[in-house]
Amino acid sequence: MTGVGVGIIGTGFMGKAHALAYRTAASLFPLRARPVLEMVADVDHAAAERAHRSFGFRRLTKDWRELVADPAVHIVCITTPTALHYEMALAAIAAGKHVHCEKPLAESEAKAGAMVQAAEAASIRTQVGFNYLKNPLLGLAREMIAGGELGEITGFRGSHAEDYMADPEAPFTWRLDPAGAGVLADLGSHIIGLARFLLGPITAVIADLETVVKERPVVRGSAERRAVTVDDIARLTVRFARGCGGTIEASWVATGRTMQLGFEISGTKGALAFTQERLNELLFHRAGGPASRRGFLRIEAGPEHPPYGFFCPAPGHQLGFNDLKTIEAADFLQMIEGGPAKGPDFREGWEIQKVVETAVRSSRVRAWLSVP
Amino acid sequence: MTGVGVGIIGTGFMGKAHALAYRTAASLFPLRARPVLEMVADVDHAAAERAHRSFGFRRLTKDWRELVADPAVHIVCITTPTALHYEMALAAIAAGKHVHCEKPLAESEAKAGAMVQAAEAASIRTQVGFNYLKNPLLGLAREMIAGGELGEITGFRGSHAEDYMADPEAPFTWRLDPAGAGVLADLGSHIIGLARFLLGPITAVIADLETVVKERPVVRGSAERRAVTVDDIARLTVRFARGCGGTIEASWVATGRTMQLGFEISGTKGALAFTQERLNELLFHRAGGPASRRGFLRIEAGPEHPPYGFFCPAPGHQLGFNDLKTIEAADFLQMIEGGPAKGPDFREGWEIQKVVETAVRSSRVRAWLSVP
Amino acid sequence: MTGVGVGIIGTGFMGKAHALAYRTAASLFPLRARPVLEMVADVDHAAAERAHRSFGFRRLTKDWRELVADPAVHIVCITTPTALHYEMALAAIAAGKHVHCEKPLAESEAKAGAMVQAAEAASIRTQVGFNYLKNPLLGLAREMIAGGELGEITGFRGSHAEDYMADPEAPFTWRLDPAGAGVLADLGSHIIGLARFLLGPITAVIADLETVVKERPVVRGSAERRAVTVDDIARLTVRFARGCGGTIEASWVATGRTMQLGFEISGTKGALAFTQERLNELLFHRAGGPASRRGFLRIEAGPEHPPYGFFCPAPGHQLGFNDLKTIEAADFLQMIEGGPAKGPDFREGWEIQKVVETAVRSSRVRAWLSVP
Amino acid sequence: MTGVGVGIIGTGFMGKAHALAYRTAASLFPLRARPVLEMVADVDHAAAERAHRSFGFRRLTKDWRELVADPAVHIVCITTPTALHYEMALAAIAAGKHVHCEKPLAESEAKAGAMVQAAEAASIRTQVGFNYLKNPLLGLAREMIAGGELGEITGFRGSHAEDYMADPEAPFTWRLDPAGAGVLADLGSHIIGLARFLLGPITAVIADLETVVKERPVVRGSAERRAVTVDDIARLTVRFARGCGGTIEASWVATGRTMQLGFEISGTKGALAFTQERLNELLFHRAGGPASRRGFLRIEAGPEHPPYGFFCPAPGHQLGFNDLKTIEAADFLQMIEGGPAKGPDFREGWEIQKVVETAVRSSRVRAWLSVP
Repeated sequence: MTGVGVGIIGTGFMGKAHALAYRTAASLFPLRARPVLEMVADVDHAAAERAHRSFGFRRLTKDWRELVADPAVHIVCITTPTALHYEMALAAIAAGKHVHCEKPLAESEAKAGAMVQAAEAASIRTQVGFNYLKNPLLGLAREMIAGGELGEITGFRGSHAEDYMADPEAPFTWRLDPAGAGVLADLGSHIIGLARFLLGPITAVIADLETVVKERPVVRGSAERRAVTVDDIARLTVRFARGCGGTIEASWVATGRTMQLGFEISGTKGALAFTQERLNELLFHRAGGPASRRGFLRIEAGPEHPPYGFFCPAPGHQLGFNDLKTIEAADFLQMIEGGPAKGPDFREGWEIQKVVETAVRSSRVRAWLSVP
Repeated sequence: MTGVGVGIIGTGFMGKAHALAYRTAASLFPLRARPVLEMVADVDHAAAERAHRSFGFRRLTKDWRELVADPAVHIVCITTPTALHYEMALAAIAAGKHVHCEKPLAESEAKAGAMVQAAEAASIRTQVGFNYLKNPLLGLAREMIAGGELGEITGFRGSHAEDYMADPEAPFTWRLDPAGAGVLADLGSHIIGLARFLLGPITAVIADLETVVKERPVVRGSAERRAVTVDDIARLTVRFARGCGGTIEASWVATGRTMQLGFEISGTKGALAFTQERLNELLFHRAGGPASRRGFLRIEAGPEHPPYGFFCPAPGHQLGFNDLKTIEAADFLQMIEGGPAKGPDFREGWEIQKVVETAVRSSRVRAWLSVP
Repeated sequence: MTGVGVGIIGTGFMGKAHALAYRTAASLFPLRARPVLEMVADVDHAAAERAHRSFGFRRLTKDWRELVADPAVHIVCITTPTALHYEMALAAIAAGKHVHCEKPLAESEAKAGAMVQAAEAASIRTQVGFNYLKNPLLGLAREMIAGGELGEITGFRGSHAEDYMADPEAPFTWRLDPAGAGVLADLGSHIIGLARFLLGPITAVIADLETVVKERPVVRGSAERRAVTVDDIARLTVRFARGCGGTIEASWVATGRTMQLGFEISGTKGALAFTQERLNELLFHRAGGPASRRGFLRIEAGPEHPPYGFFCPAPGHQLGFNDLKTIEAADFLQMIEGGPAKGPDFREGWEIQKVVETAVRSSRVRAWLSVP
Repeated sequence: MTGVGVGIIGTGFMGKAHALAYRTAASLFPLRARPVLEMVADVDHAAAERAHRSFGFRRLTKDWRELVADPAVHIVCITTPTALHYEMALAAIAAGKHVHCEKPLAESEAKAGAMVQAAEAASIRTQVGFNYLKNPLLGLAREMIAGGELGEITGFRGSHAEDYMADPEAPFTWRLDPAGAGVLADLGSHIIGLARFLLGPITAVIADLETVVKERPVVRGSAERRAVTVDDIARLTVRFARGCGGTIEASWVATGRTMQLGFEISGTKGALAFTQERLNELLFHRAGGPASRRGFLRIEAGPEHPPYGFFCPAPGHQLGFNDLKTIEAADFLQMIEGGPAKGPDFREGWEIQKVVETAVRSSRVRAWLSVP
């Protein structure tokens, strides 16, 4: 068994999550090649040192280009702010590395498209960090839909609402960069990705985006303000290629909500409801049974929902957020070893970005637009 | 169509609930004889006048004996404090009236037994006001158990917890009368009745009763205190005649709970869970299906759960507390007309009282006792 | 105390609900003038006779015009299919009666406007049967919003989804009448009304309406089909006059849902969430407290939420659907006696209808439209 | 920074959980000495090799005595069936190792007591694997109780119910060993430990234990049966040293339940409710506020509940089962480094075992017994 060198750029929330995920995936999943935390890169040297020490990376660097170029690094994880994804990914692809990039893939669909082209031309493998899709119960939901348990789908209602920007004094960050979308890129991409994961392509959209907090302090506590131009709330009505319609909402000013990533799907034979607030539960209604026993079934995650069983042999014990990231890493490692392509890859990240960007334009022109 | 004269003694919470229930039952249920609010009795004349006016009683009186003796009164509803039930019920029975008495039936099982004997000797019909049993979903639960959907029952866990006596400054009332039990008689009788309704006779009990608030003001705000000797919390472990065991708890100092009358029942083939806090929902688990679709089904009340349909033709619209009382009245009226005996009658009220009293003695002697 | 004569046209689901509501309101609420069930009208004579007998109406008729003209009838309740509301209401207004009309007010906003003009010219009182607005917890929600407990409102997400038309074999009914809207008029009017009740006027809308079941049997089981042209699902994005945006969805093909009338409202200081599926619960989040005690509070209906206390003096006992209708009747009776105008009146019904109709047009032209 | 050698005996469910936990703790928590997976022992050599490979143990052995004696091993984790704990722990203690033993500590309180004596005499550190106690929200609950937020505690109702032995064809295992208790030792020890964690010592108990499935196949599918003598369900009523009472139930035949480890605690000023089925939520009621805003608050786990923040900087993202085990390992490592003793240690495991054993005897003699 030889090792697969993992290099991680960035040591924040997602950088740590990637490090932990690759390490844990190596232990819990049946992989042929053992992943090795080969190198970590952070412009903040102290941060890189902390990560190096905590996660047992073999080496560290301040320069992500060094990481990308290193021959012992086979997978490059990009966990930096969105605006940096493009340059880093292209460099990693050029160096022949597999790339695991955080979401959203890029701040524009044009850049995302270029990343896809580069990746596909280079025949390297890609993964985008839409970790919530890795929930075993969402895998079940997708399988139920694909298998016809819900009949013909008639509607989708989805949202991703949190409140981390609800405080008007929350400072300006890179997430508010006028070059991209705001919440629609940050959280909206999750629920758009989930809609596509379950129901397939979105073909048209009408959107209403608004900026609730018009200016924010440049840093917390500062009197100096910077104007915010991106969306705090995005409301989309969409049409799917399969023929049904739906609504999608994203908000980061949804006071009191910390993880309201959820949906309700109706079909002619059944329905599903889910919220990431209770990520180990999936509600399922099956039409047509005896009316006196009618209702929603609360399916609880267990080893029958792969790959839950790699984490715990007993049902009801529950997965957490970091476990979803571990599944993401394991799926990518397995694909690199020749296993099935579970995605979402760069192409899917691009498709999601197209919906985001079409929605932004739709909101500006106040009209329905086709997703290219 | 001739009328059935209803006489109601008492005009408090339950007096009003009876008046409303009989009036509404007459409209919603297919009865042969229309109930008529014939007379209301209250020692407080102004209260009797208010009830007379509000509910359209034909006549009123300060003297319950007059009501009991009145030839136009066919059903006597007793909604006074427990200590008065015995005398009133015996008088009503002696006068040949059907008796609908609030719970608990009496402050002692001896008196309850005498009431049963009198009623059965006189061949009149009786009903005790355990209104929660009238919930259509509990009828479904009983039917599912009787029909074997849960297999052999292996355990019961029930409670009725509220907090209306949690405040130490809540004053002394007739409910604290040392002659009876405290919360075990008041709320415990509901959950004991429910346990019996679903699973049949309780044969043995060990109980631990305690008084949490040792003395209370004689009236709200008074400095004068009266010692409390009855139970604020009662914890019972029981054995059922059918062979299984269970626990039953009653508390009126359960801070924050206003209607936690609920249970969980396990069987070899299934399980049920319920709380009156969400009275229109019954949770049902069926063992043995595919593990990946396993969970509890949330059955929602609808017209398939008789007699819900008399209240509303559409599912999910929900019944409320007063509707349960209406079903109780309707069941009694239908029985008087020759319909099925749905109970709970005086005999059932007596059986419940036996469990209460055995539990009180068990707690004193600190030992398991058989229920006589 | 003199009586107020109530005449009810129609004896179906809503006809019965009105009869019960007026009778119960008379008993539970402190009214000066006692309502009397004076007359019932139904073209189906047997149905009229059944209602007459069940609810104790003084008189019955096959001809609604007779009812409208009767001098002992002071309030006319219109519970017939929508297409009949206009003619009946105008006749009742012309006869000087107060009118309590079921929702939606009319099948077109033009007719609704004419009804408003007639009513206001005649100085009679009107009420439209949006009974869900009468939930005491929604009164609390409105008060909290008006009182600033949620701060500035930043978003609304509402829906009314049921599944009574989900079965493709459910037959064609008057609700599918091409002259009106479909689910948007039937269920959508409830959630539009609720949005307005809580947040005030809606000024602009973009909508996407679709017909899921394209043709239905003319009667159940028939091979003969009739094309459906109205909406089975309606998805609206809206702007409120107060400055915030929101989404509104209506569906009667939402498999598994029987009463998903609900919303989530975000504000800068708090948030509310509600679903009629648990009508006795309101979720409230207050921003700004200690983070370790953060979450949504599940407020349970009780006597502190008027007029709950008229139904039951104890919290947690729960109201049901028919109780909401009783509150509606009581509010109307109290207004007629000179009490506050709680609405929704014809003018409000008209405003709701304007939103419905603007949405229908918006969906046709695929563009944002201002609500006139 | 030097390493702390971890040796793990056993490679099943818990063996893997320990390996993962120590590895992850090393990365997420600020430890001075880095834990190193030094050695794994399993009588099944192939299993040991798999664990060695998967988790990156430095060495492996078939002989646990070799592991215990190894000078590079500083912490010995015992994850074998209960009957082996005693011998292994004593050997490890004799070798001067810190011992992290799975629960229950031993199959008898006598043995548990001997283990405590040996450990305390040797001044080594101990930990028992009651991982659920490590939930940050239970830490909050304990702190709220200790800080008086609930006032004087008036009652406890706890249970741990699962269904992994509900199937009568589930075969005989070491958990059914007649030398110990059955479910009361296996699951009951968790809820007893939780009761003690929150409320302190239990002083008296009356218990009713029963064996629901009287005999089981020796291996799955076998016709050969072995009699079961231990409890499938245990129902306890208890008294706490602090003065309040409570009930505790354990069942492994609770059809449909996979992780119903929960409790409800009432106090004079507040109440808490929790179930491990939703381990990231704690329900809290505070008495005394305005009645119209009364209810239970659903507190959601977040970084304000240490050590949640080491796993994720954002609230609502949720911990899973394996994270609790990581906290357990981290707490033990930190204590070994001189940090606070968070327990539960062997002495606590012994105390829990005393309650278990007293309950077993109580059930036999059908009487209240003092916990020694």
